[in-house]
Amino acid sequence: NWLVLVVQVLGVVSVVITAVWMGHYQGGFAWQSDPAREFNYHPLFMIIGMVFLYADGILAYRVFRNDRKVFIKILHACMHISALIFASVGLKAVFDSHNLRTPPFANLYSLHSWIGLFVVVCFGLQWVLGFVAFLWPKLGMGARTTYMPYHQFWGVALLILATVAALTGIMEKTAHVTNYSGLPPEGILVNSLGIILLVFTGLVVYLVTR
Amino acid sequence: NWLVLVVQVLGVVSVVITAVWMGHYQGGFAWQSDPAREFNYHPLFMIIGMVFLYADGILAYRVFRNDRKVFIKILHACMHISALIFASVGLKAVFDSHNLRTPPFANLYSLHSWIGLFVVVCFGLQWVLGFVAFLWPKLGMGARTTYMPYHQFWGVALLILATVAALTGIMEKTAHVTNYSGLPPEGILVNSLGIILLVFTGLVVYLVTR
Ligand code: HEM
Ligand code: HEM
Ligand code: HEM
Ligand code: HEM
Ligand SMILES: O=C1O[C@H]([C@@H](O)CO)C(O)=C1O
Repeated sequence: NWLVLVVQVLGVVSVVITAVWMGHYQGGFAWQSDPAREFNYHPLFMIIGMVFLYADGILAYRVFRNDRKVFIKILHACMHISALIFASVGLKAVFDSHNLRTPPFANLYSLHSWIGLFVVVCFGLQWVLGFVAFLWPKLGMGARTTYMPYHQFWGVALLILATVAALTGIMEKTAHVTNYSGLPPEGILVNSLGIILLVFTGLVVYLVTR
Repeated sequence: NWLVLVVQVLGVVSVVITAVWMGHYQGGFAWQSDPAREFNYHPLFMIIGMVFLYADGILAYRVFRNDRKVFIKILHACMHISALIFASVGLKAVFDSHNLRTPPFANLYSLHSWIGLFVVVCFGLQWVLGFVAFLWPKLGMGARTTYMPYHQFWGVALLILATVAALTGIMEKTAHVTNYSGLPPEGILVNSLGIILLVFTGLVVYLVTR
């Protein structure tokens, strides 16, 4: 399906734009030795994990429809655990960047952070429930069929919420774009990132729900 | 249905919170005589129009299922034209607040403004298409049935996008919350507004799509 290809291209482009934004315009990457630049891993890893890998993990079920069921299941579970690992490192980066700064800076005060933390926690729960229900120990047929519609609904709902988290985070970070109201190249890049993420998630939701 | 009642309560609460935020914490309301405070009508009118009236206009089809079809149609069209009028005044307020300031301030530079303008324009188109297709001149049965799924899909998609626009706008405006990272009462109020809008739209989408 060519729409799946379009989604892949948009996904790669949004990761590249985020890398350029943080790597070029916002001063590049560092780990704990430089907390201000450690922050820059946060947007990159959140978008790789909670948007790109998250969505591709869902699409795996559509793309590999004809392969052996257990193979798809393991792929789906692996992609979502990778998404969770990227997200955890991305969260570690932003918490570090607040706590290791002198003086330390507050955590979890913004609307963005509230939405974001909610999404990651629910995503973790969804992974555990999916694993227990469908892979191991693997519940009985009745329990699996009951849980499946919830698994599908929340899988899609949390993807939309993850995109909302990303957009509110982007919006918050535009306070650090020099001369944002003058629409400089960095501003156009960032606005494009937001629009591309919306189109990306819109297409994925369309592909999964039709 | 009690969920419809919950939605009404959440809708009224979000309008009240926005009024308190702008009216109490952000300096109150004024029209063109005071452009800085004219801005404050923007969030209020956008949330009344593009979130509350928009959603209730959709729900009218569920709530008044048993009334005469032409009555529901006119109600639905009226609520959505009211939504559009509120949105237009809300946009006029923010453009004025930029243009009438000394020196004037730029327009349409932010991700929020791009998403927001896209939503309002598409909403206007949807209204015209709905009016032409279903009310007057009223297309033939074939054209109406073809258009209907698109009308429903875009009606829901744009409601979600309107909520995204509201959340990015809220996030942008938190730059004006004094000591936001200290989680003052204003900060908690604003974060709650964002969460309530998400729950509100989530419930409306659930009610319309199930
Ligand atoms: C799904 C994606 C994302 C999630 C789940 C997420 C989650 C979070 C969380 C939980 C925090 C709180 C950290 C703390 O309190 O120390 C945070 C902070 C932050 N995030 Fe994100 N984030 C995401 C994407 C982004 C993106 C794409 C950007 C910007 C381009 C961004 C910008 C920020 C900023 C500026 C902060 C620090 C200020 C604050 O706490 O709000 N985030 N994020
Ligand atoms: C947070 C992690 C997860 C998310 C967000 C997620 C999301 C989703 C979504 C949205 C679907 C519907 C896909 C479609 O209809 O094409 C789905 C299907 C499915 N998921 Fe997950 N999933 C997660 C973890 C898991 C895990 C760990 C397993 C265990 C193997 C699993 C097993 C399944 C199965 C068996 C289906 C059935 C697909 C079908 O037959 O239509 N999921 N998942
Ligand atoms: C669906 C709801 C909304 C839509 C469609 C919308 C649309 C817009 C548009 C088109 C602009 C550009 C005006 C200009 O360039 O002069 C704008 C500006 C603005 N809006 Fe909104 N808005 C919405 C809700 C909100 C809310 C709830 C807030 C804050 C609580 C907000 C805060 C702002 C701010 C601070 C600006 C000025 C900076 C900028 O241009 O981005 N908006 N909005
Ligand atoms: C921007 C304005 C509008 C939006 C956002 C909108 C949105 C929607 C939505 C989401 C539905 C599905 C409701 C449901 O399934 O319960 C719907 C149904 C409908 N709308 Fe609109 N609408 C708009 C304007 C109009 C106008 C002007 C008319 C002309 C009368 C109209 C006529 C209809 C009709 C006839 C239905 C059929 C509902 C059914 O039988 O299930 N709409 N609209
Ligand atoms: O454009 C804006 O107008 C208001 C405020 O500056 C008016 O004083 C605001 O918060 C903006 O971002």
